[in-house]
Amino acid sequence: MDRLTLDYTHVLDAAVGPDHGLTAQELEGIAPQTEEALRAVQARRTKDLRWMDLPHQADVQQDVLDYAGSMQPLFASGQLKNVVVLGIGGSALGNRALHAALSSPFHDIEPPEGLPRLFVLDNVDPDLVGEFLDTVDVSKCLFNVISKSGSTAETMSQFLVLRQKLIDAVGEEAHVRHIVVTTDAEKGVLRPIVDAEGYASFIVPDGVGGRFSVLSPVGLVSSALVGIDVRGLLAGAADMDERCKGAAFADNPALIYAAIQTLMQNKKGKPMAVTFSYSQRLASLSDWYAQLLAESIGKRKSKGGADVFVGPTPVSAVGVTDQHSQSQLYVEGPFDKWFTLLAVERADHVVTIPKQYADHDALSYLGGRTMNELFAAEREGTRIALTDAGRPCCSIQFPSVTAHTVGQYLYMMEMAVAVMGELYDVDAFDQPGVEAAKVATYALMGRAGFEERRTEIEAAKSKDPKVV
Amino acid sequence: MDRLTLDYTHVLDAAVGPDHGLTAQELEGIAPQTEEALRAVQARRTKDLRWMDLPHQADVQQDVLDYAGSMQPLFASGQLKNVVVLGIGGSALGNRALHAALSSPFHDIEPPEGLPRLFVLDNVDPDLVGEFLDTVDVSKCLFNVISKSGSTAETMSQFLVLRQKLIDAVGEEAHVRHIVVTTDAEKGVLRPIVDAEGYASFIVPDGVGGRFSVLSPVGLVSSALVGIDVRGLLAGAADMDERCKGAAFADNPALIYAAIQTLMQNKKGKPMAVTFSYSQRLASLSDWYAQLLAESIGKRKSKGGADVFVGPTPVSAVGVTDQHSQSQLYVEGPFDKWFTLLAVERADHVVTIPKQYADHDALSYLGGRTMNELFAAEREGTRIALTDAGRPCCSIQFPSVTAHTVGQYLYMMEMAVAVMGELYDVDAFDQPGVEAAKVATYALMGRAGFEERRTEIEAAKSKDPKVV
Repeated sequence: MDRLTLDYTHVLDAAVGPDHGLTAQELEGIAPQTEEALRAVQARRTKDLRWMDLPHQADVQQDVLDYAGSMQPLFASGQLKNVVVLGIGGSALGNRALHAALSSPFHDIEPPEGLPRLFVLDNVDPDLVGEFLDTVDVSKCLFNVISKSGSTAETMSQFLVLRQKLIDAVGEEAHVRHIVVTTDAEKGVLRPIVDAEGYASFIVPDGVGGRFSVLSPVGLVSSALVGIDVRGLLAGAADMDERCKGAAFADNPALIYAAIQTLMQNKKGKPMAVTFSYSQRLASLSDWYAQLLAESIGKRKSKGGADVFVGPTPVSAVGVTDQHSQSQLYVEGPFDKWFTLLAVERADHVVTIPKQYADHDALSYLGGRTMNELFAAEREGTRIALTDAGRPCCSIQFPSVTAHTVGQYLYMMEMAVAVMGELYDVDAFDQPGVEAAKVATYALMGRAGFEERRTEIEAAKSKDPKVV
Repeated sequence: MDRLTLDYTHVLDAAVGPDHGLTAQELEGIAPQTEEALRAVQARRTKDLRWMDLPHQADVQQDVLDYAGSMQPLFASGQLKNVVVLGIGGSALGNRALHAALSSPFHDIEPPEGLPRLFVLDNVDPDLVGEFLDTVDVSKCLFNVISKSGSTAETMSQFLVLRQKLIDAVGEEAHVRHIVVTTDAEKGVLRPIVDAEGYASFIVPDGVGGRFSVLSPVGLVSSALVGIDVRGLLAGAADMDERCKGAAFADNPALIYAAIQTLMQNKKGKPMAVTFSYSQRLASLSDWYAQLLAESIGKRKSKGGADVFVGPTPVSAVGVTDQHSQSQLYVEGPFDKWFTLLAVERADHVVTIPKQYADHDALSYLGGRTMNELFAAEREGTRIALTDAGRPCCSIQFPSVTAHTVGQYLYMMEMAVAVMGELYDVDAFDQPGVEAAKVATYALMGRAGFEERRTEIEAAKSKDPKVV
């Protein structure tokens, strides 16, 4: 079957020695804690951690599919050509990751017949948004505005800009059909706007934080619109839920992964967690995971309120590409990283390398082989080089890249990170550290109520700037 | 003028305290070493470090521009539509970074009149290459094959595959015009093939390692073909060369940057160097820099041959996007990073946010302002949040994003990294750590001469794999 597997042979002391590898005692020692953590997390499933139930909400799935079905004729006829996500962070990274993994890498260059392009406009860089306005015909766009609170400055400023451009292009009445909003059911700024304007809308349920929202309409609407198998995705996530929710440590990939991460940082002194995707299509999953890990576990305070300043730093790499960029450091540099390879057992394509120039030694071994063989040999070659150099390395193995396996991955990582929160003793579901920058931004933008902070910022300006 | 500046006010103890910030004594202490390092590097300019002279080679520039000019009619007439780089690592990252920085973000979606798209095919993932073959018409492509040695497995397997597809599509004779090769002048596998087939070609000069090759034909050919101002790029690099080659520490941004990096890791215990690009267009420069830094400084051996296992880990982030993904960790997590913001003073576009929904407090402060103001306020807000939390943070300021400022950046970073090599006491120009993976790959692919390694690999396979 297409069951995801976690191979952790090469994070163990047998593979990389006891300084860098985990011992049986270390794993046995932490196993009961992971099981207790899992029980603590599962106990909140029907309370504040509602994201855990997202794979099972058949009615929401149906609503999303019905909506996508209703829009399909507009894409088929060419009345609409682009879906544009206006969102950022958890309202963008999942959308991009799913599109990268489950659409063609050239989807937006040559869109398949009847399907729209998907742009995820997750920045307010005027050179990005300005160039978008110069290049893309807004009258051919469906904008998916995603913000639970409706107060996200970036998303809302984009909404204000693009709504006006739409009205200029197609008129006040017609612009309504070009916008679909994903936001809170009742609270916040966007819901009353949806009601007043008559936009189509979806709900970000309570108990679903941004970085745990990919399996809600936040991630599903744009996916369904570009033809991704949303049912398969959720079925994969549901299967992983079933597999992890009650299983003991030895059979539970989420618990084992959480244990490895925690021990690698706290016992083996490795502050960096590298996701090394041996798949171009899966590479964006590591950006999604980077937010999940960094925002959930990167915390100043323990649950008890003590200053702890903890958290692993996620690093993304792509194989084989980054063998030619980062492997030198990974193999020879400090022992400050551990690695997770994403491996795909069966690609969708077979590319055969022709036998040519057989008299050249550096080419002859390639002829008649496939790129599939080369790609797999390079992945295994890199794994061997890493572990021979004492760098621990596990593999998450995808039988193939499908909505079902990607769904398994997403859910496994969400569960692993929730459990890590317990093991690191931090609240995995808040993000107090982003407040300071927001307040400073409001102050600098002159938002009412932030005048005092602005005065402080002015006063704190260096009298002796060092600029060369 | 459009001179790049380095603002290092906020890496100093006055900004972030003496535990995390550099003291005047520390900078004064390292300054003479940086100047000595610069002299050592400059002494090799006409010997083995020929990359230092690349900005000044007017004849090469002219050859590249002449070639691009000769191809222009084929793009204008639609006979050719795509330029495809077949290269990896240093033969890909610069090409992609220049295209991202100096072409529109939507260039490949809607190519400007008369200009080709640019694809950089820097992987052998069969799902990437296979999908390319399924989607892109090779008879409309110009392939730029880049490998100094001609023995890079990835590039050469792509070359073999695509050459055959070309011949199948356009015939043996016509295929020649679809290939331009950038390789060694005499040595290696590709030069004799170029001679035998009659391909157009450019030279990767000696003394120009892959990661220092962006200003050679390696980076210039594809850039010129997509309409990038190659002269401006090289003029910017030449200006930075002039500015850095003899200047004392206090006036020398490359030396100051090298000093900060070295002290941050070796005195302040920060293993990670985050390039936080507050510009979507400049974001790919950080991937280029990631190779430059990681491969140059990530080394097991000191110059004297002792085991040292050193090197900073480059981390790439994009503002404002990653404020919603990584800032939580950056502000509250361990004190294990220092930051370089890439800041653009003057964007090419001004995007005004309309005044709408003024009764909503969370929106009213945005109306009538520009995205440019918001973007700048968020950058400064993040800088303030980082430094208030004791996280050192410098800024490299681009007056605007032009070929000239990007050229300055590239050369400044190359020079800084060359100097870091001396300060870290490692050879910044080799990459012995990539050999082990290559050998293992050859062994697994059954290349002649690697049978013994294959036997070893088979014997080393775990008898007790741990898979869940």
